[in-house]
Amino acid sequence: SHDPYSMKDDILYHFNLGTSTHDLPAMFGDVKFVCVGGSPWRMKSFTEYIAKELGLSEPNAEFPNICEGTDRYAMYKVGPVLSVSHGMGIPSISIMLHELIKLLYHAHCTDVTVVRIGTSGGIGLKPGIVVVTKQSVDSVFQPRLEQIILGKPVVRSTELDAELAEELLQCGKDLAEFETVIGNTMCTLDFYEGQARLDGAFCSYSEEDKQSYLVEAYAAGVRNIEMESSVFAAMCKLSNLRAAVVCVTLLDRLKGDQLTSSHDILNSYQQRPQVLVGHYIKKKLNAYKKS
Amino acid sequence: SHDPYSMKDDILYHFNLGTSTHDLPAMFGDVKFVCVGGSPWRMKSFTEYIAKELGLSEPNAEFPNICEGTDRYAMYKVGPVLSVSHGMGIPSISIMLHELIKLLYHAHCTDVTVVRIGTSGGIGLKPGIVVVTKQSVDSVFQPRLEQIILGKPVVRSTELDAELAEELLQCGKDLAEFETVIGNTMCTLDFYEGQARLDGAFCSYSEEDKQSYLVEAYAAGVRNIEMESSVFAAMCKLSNLRAAVVCVTLLDRLKGDQLTSSHDILNSYQQRPQVLVGHYIKKKLNAYKKS
Repeated sequence: SHDPYSMKDDILYHFNLGTSTHDLPAMFGDVKFVCVGGSPWRMKSFTEYIAKELGLSEPNAEFPNICEGTDRYAMYKVGPVLSVSHGMGIPSISIMLHELIKLLYHAHCTDVTVVRIGTSGGIGLKPGIVVVTKQSVDSVFQPRLEQIILGKPVVRSTELDAELAEELLQCGKDLAEFETVIGNTMCTLDFYEGQARLDGAFCSYSEEDKQSYLVEAYAAGVRNIEMESSVFAAMCKLSNLRAAVVCVTLLDRLKGDQLTSSHDILNSYQQRPQVLVGHYIKKKLNAYKKS
Repeated sequence: SHDPYSMKDDILYHFNLGTSTHDLPAMFGDVKFVCVGGSPWRMKSFTEYIAKELGLSEPNAEFPNICEGTDRYAMYKVGPVLSVSHGMGIPSISIMLHELIKLLYHAHCTDVTVVRIGTSGGIGLKPGIVVVTKQSVDSVFQPRLEQIILGKPVVRSTELDAELAEELLQCGKDLAEFETVIGNTMCTLDFYEGQARLDGAFCSYSEEDKQSYLVEAYAAGVRNIEMESSVFAAMCKLSNLRAAVVCVTLLDRLKGDQLTSSHDILNSYQQRPQVLVGHYIKKKLNAYKKS
């Protein structure tokens, strides 16, 4: 097989970065934590938050978008924490992760932890609960991802780091600001039909079909549904990166499909994974300092 | 089955629009053409271009982002032309299309044509050639999309409007500014392994495997590869929307994987689908006026 790292130059096209145009070791060599999430705005606000938490923020500090030459992804950095947006869905996050994994390699980064902080639909949970993913499962509740290579399916494991998930759960308990649980996360290829919503542009099933599918998912340990965790878990595992998925639930899908909560409430929910992961990073950095 | 249009209120969450908060018929009732593309910047520049072409642009006109309350998608409108970004990959465009189809329904739009204008990797074509899609095919070159509903695969047709494709090809000939061809488009779930690239973070196949896969694709009529056309075709067909896919090729995949052309050259290529579709819209609107 071909060694992708044998190339003389490497253009990370969707980041607008490259080995011949940027000094990647100087820019990224100290990265120890990478946080990724769908929304560019949220990843910027995470960087501002973590800078304050770590005491790395000058008054009125501005964090430039490292990928400002492109609108595909946004990237911010403060100290050892890199924050990258990935858009919505498996294909979008997979492009980002290919280029992120190459970036970390070219920059000679070591001992990196990657956490996806996101939003999700809950099953049988009150809105606002934070779910740390135990296993990312597919639409029939199996912990696997089918990747098509040269027209043929290749099945990959979506196993995540169990110790890291427990540590994050403990951070939730330390904080005691909101409820945090551990559970399986179903990863789907779409937001409407793939998640048994009744409010998409088309719907070929009944309210009863929806309920029985979600109840079946709950029985298989699924506590929330999102659209990126499977390929995130699979690619991090293939790259030996310690990885976790931390998503807040915005609604209980057993009770509805539409996001009817106010903007303020939804915004406050979306800050919870940031707060939890911020607490984790601070704890880890303090432990490094002491050792 | 459930009728999604029976809801009293409908929140188009990822557009930050809704039936109870916005007068959708007043805002969108006159829409006749919808152009969609991955990049929000490109969809803004398309709107500026089409405004000038249609003589609808005041000097220094600004086109506000209709979805400015969210960073998921960007949307612009000038006269009968709506321009919407969709991010990268099938899941991302599918969320947008569900909400777009509902928007057009709520706004009582009629006789709407939807065109995806995008970028792609070519097979056996010089970079810069514009491909009008005949059929959108999967990784084994079949014109179908497998949609998972309640954990079970449902196969949908990815047929596009043949007459519209011919009209667009004719527009390319009228313009004579660049080469336009008609051909099959392969739609994949990722940019690296799914498209047989050798420059992703991992690669389990050889250069020879890649070449033989792409040669096989070419023999099946595939002239370019992108990541959104199959679900775009399937959802437009289900909604009885006339639809076409017009993508420029940025490189010839038989000759390489990385995008090494200069930014200026890549930018000029990306304008070609805009110019072609702009010409088509002008021609159609002139024909309406005469009739």
